[in-house]
Amino acid sequence: MLPKPETAEDFAGIVEELRSALGDAAVLVGDDIPARNERDWSPLPASRPLAVLRPDSPEGVAAAVRICVSHDIAVVPQGGLTGLCGGARADGASVALSLERFVGVEEIDAAAGTMTVRAGTPLETVQRAAEAAGFFCALDLGARGSCTIGGNLSTNAGGNRVIRYGMAREMVLGLEAVLPDGTLVSSLNKMMKNNAGYDLKQLFVGSEGTLGIITRAVLRLHPQPGCTMAALCGLSSYDKVLELLAAARRGLGPILSAFEVMWPDYWEVVTRQVPNVRSPIGGDHAVYVLVEAQGTDATVDGPRFQDWLEQLAEAGTVADAAVAQSLADVKAFWGVRDACAEFNQVLGRHQSFDIGLPIAEMNRYVEACGAELRAQLPGVVALFYGHIGDGNLHIVACQPGVEPQPKETIDEVIYGCVRRFGGTVSAEHGIGTTKKRWLGYTRSPIELALMRTVKAALDPRNLLNPGKVL
Amino acid sequence: MLPKPETAEDFAGIVEELRSALGDAAVLVGDDIPARNERDWSPLPASRPLAVLRPDSPEGVAAAVRICVSHDIAVVPQGGLTGLCGGARADGASVALSLERFVGVEEIDAAAGTMTVRAGTPLETVQRAAEAAGFFCALDLGARGSCTIGGNLSTNAGGNRVIRYGMAREMVLGLEAVLPDGTLVSSLNKMMKNNAGYDLKQLFVGSEGTLGIITRAVLRLHPQPGCTMAALCGLSSYDKVLELLAAARRGLGPILSAFEVMWPDYWEVVTRQVPNVRSPIGGDHAVYVLVEAQGTDATVDGPRFQDWLEQLAEAGTVADAAVAQSLADVKAFWGVRDACAEFNQVLGRHQSFDIGLPIAEMNRYVEACGAELRAQLPGVVALFYGHIGDGNLHIVACQPGVEPQPKETIDEVIYGCVRRFGGTVSAEHGIGTTKKRWLGYTRSPIELALMRTVKAALDPRNLLNPGKVL
Repeated sequence: MLPKPETAEDFAGIVEELRSALGDAAVLVGDDIPARNERDWSPLPASRPLAVLRPDSPEGVAAAVRICVSHDIAVVPQGGLTGLCGGARADGASVALSLERFVGVEEIDAAAGTMTVRAGTPLETVQRAAEAAGFFCALDLGARGSCTIGGNLSTNAGGNRVIRYGMAREMVLGLEAVLPDGTLVSSLNKMMKNNAGYDLKQLFVGSEGTLGIITRAVLRLHPQPGCTMAALCGLSSYDKVLELLAAARRGLGPILSAFEVMWPDYWEVVTRQVPNVRSPIGGDHAVYVLVEAQGTDATVDGPRFQDWLEQLAEAGTVADAAVAQSLADVKAFWGVRDACAEFNQVLGRHQSFDIGLPIAEMNRYVEACGAELRAQLPGVVALFYGHIGDGNLHIVACQPGVEPQPKETIDEVIYGCVRRFGGTVSAEHGIGTTKKRWLGYTRSPIELALMRTVKAALDPRNLLNPGKVL
Repeated sequence: MLPKPETAEDFAGIVEELRSALGDAAVLVGDDIPARNERDWSPLPASRPLAVLRPDSPEGVAAAVRICVSHDIAVVPQGGLTGLCGGARADGASVALSLERFVGVEEIDAAAGTMTVRAGTPLETVQRAAEAAGFFCALDLGARGSCTIGGNLSTNAGGNRVIRYGMAREMVLGLEAVLPDGTLVSSLNKMMKNNAGYDLKQLFVGSEGTLGIITRAVLRLHPQPGCTMAALCGLSSYDKVLELLAAARRGLGPILSAFEVMWPDYWEVVTRQVPNVRSPIGGDHAVYVLVEAQGTDATVDGPRFQDWLEQLAEAGTVADAAVAQSLADVKAFWGVRDACAEFNQVLGRHQSFDIGLPIAEMNRYVEACGAELRAQLPGVVALFYGHIGDGNLHIVACQPGVEPQPKETIDEVIYGCVRRFGGTVSAEHGIGTTKKRWLGYTRSPIELALMRTVKAALDPRNLLNPGKVL
């Protein structure tokens, strides 16, 4: 499918060309290729690319792309390789282009509230640099120590606080990227308002490296929150969840920073089976909600949060609730929500899903999808939880004791229900290769054709991250 | 330049085809063409298009485009015609396609916090519908009664509260548009998170109708603010402005909703010459700032705002300040800022500019640009003011008593300085035709080439709003 250098000799010549352009340290082949560049966090098997290129400048990235495409060799961009859908996996006919040596924060502009950063910088480094300058980097996700900001932007990462700060896309003010033909396009804008022609950065955010390789970005920083309040609530129905969400939007306003919902099956598994996770509230409830708000002043916002919740308890919206009295409590509450990271230990082999649904449809989806899974797969375990304030539902499913796992059936039920309920097959994880099969459940043939038109316009030879997304 | 039907007879046939597809009421020609469709709010002269088409459905818009392009006739989309750069102006070889008969709010989804709305709906109607449903439409601008939401989105409108809510782009969750070949692409997504392939709506937001005609949108609504606080401050230097902005971000956090700066020349003209506008503070200051915050609860947020400002006065950041004690005060404070609408009466013929600059550069720009204008044009009046929290500066300039006005010189100085200071020639008004000449001052040849690649991919025959932006 992909063009390949005809002989080993041809390829040796190309490697020479790359080495002379980029320096020896930037070109790894054969056994020098690190195992880490052979896979991402998806379940796909390892695959060794033709070479791993590690240029240390945007110009180097551009040169690497130009050389590769001049020889008809496909280029697969790599960041922290924490993607879950195979978007950064290079097959044996491609060259992996890793941003790992183009790292660092170039500037923090305190007046503009912006950071200019190199694509290979780990998210956690970005967060710490923002903090050291008195700012807050709104993007946060579990892989923060390994993922890179370039990967975060190219996949339009989400995370826990999208309800307040938006997706990674909303953080980007300026972007620099290398096009599929090796052209370096620099649009390192710092202004919130810039309507001078098309907003080109939007092409590269969320297109999973198929339209360009992000090399640098200007990020919008936020003020550091002065205090964090959180409550864990038990509710008697999903209708009450909708009531609570509306009350949170109204009563907490813009300080509302997370609204996480957990259904009972999830709750039981994590509070009973995951070590060190305990329920902060008593009783059994139809659904559980973690509400978080980030204020500016604990002496004002703390009591206000408490009052707000007490009123909802009195009104019967919330059946039971615990309010965090300390940062340790906040952490413990999040521990219940983050316990999903332990599912490998607790559940054994299982599948994980990241879907989106209109918020009003969420519970009907959970019921319909759960019922269908149980009907088709006796004894199935299906746990539902997620960032419901953003319309994002995560699902973990398996049929204990069955080998091999009924992957196909589970996929069909979950994505089939997504299609019926008008949802999306990928809320935050992207498409890569593993979700391509389901893209048509969410996007119409016309939408897909338009995506292909854009791809063909920027990458007519289909050499940049080919076979991903589309 | 534009292809034209060869003879009047040919065009009569095309009109028949359009009438039979869209209905008679949807096709206006000759003297039936209303004067309003012959111009926008730019200074360009009126121009009567070949016809005005007014389809009343997305399918009608698609059919109209298909018929026109099949005859090589260019189509110019029109919304409320309040644009300032000629983006919706149709020349005599084009057909104007107005969304004025596709109007109305289709749905408000209270759980999702979204509104599905038709493109021809006036912004004010959108705002009122949101309010009636207990929500807040974050977009607001002076033309609210006339402009349409389709136009707001296609130009990525800004306005007064971008610092808090972002541009029009940030309001859009889903979009439906007609492509230049007449294909209707519907992506009426309601979810905040949807990473299933390319985010196609970004193509149509801010591209001024050159890549597609927006027909419907799903907007993200916000909670209604519970209270509004405002202060008008006099400061001794621009460095103090930067201090105040940093303090506002930190101390007010996400409730900060506007940060408007006015330089002394502006201040003097509006407080001394515009009727019914009075300065709420005494003395002369180096620069004036209007700070606004929208809170959830007046009893908590009001005193907090007052305390915050008092601390800044004590610390010497603010030399003098008046805090609004009522909504009437808030209105009066905004009156000083909105008095620019009266400049036609006060200044006579003048030019208006909408540029963007990195916030730290803003005052150096004002000084350099003002000095250069004064050096070249004795007696010049140049007033500087704007949404500085967003990096957006407005300028009004004229040379009183001189006819014709030295338009070329003023343009050259102002945009030349923008280029030197790394700003943008259009922060919120777009490019249309009147700013095309200056686009290269802000965008590199590589950026412009990429814009042309995207345009050619979607509109290879250059028949949708040709000659605009690029």
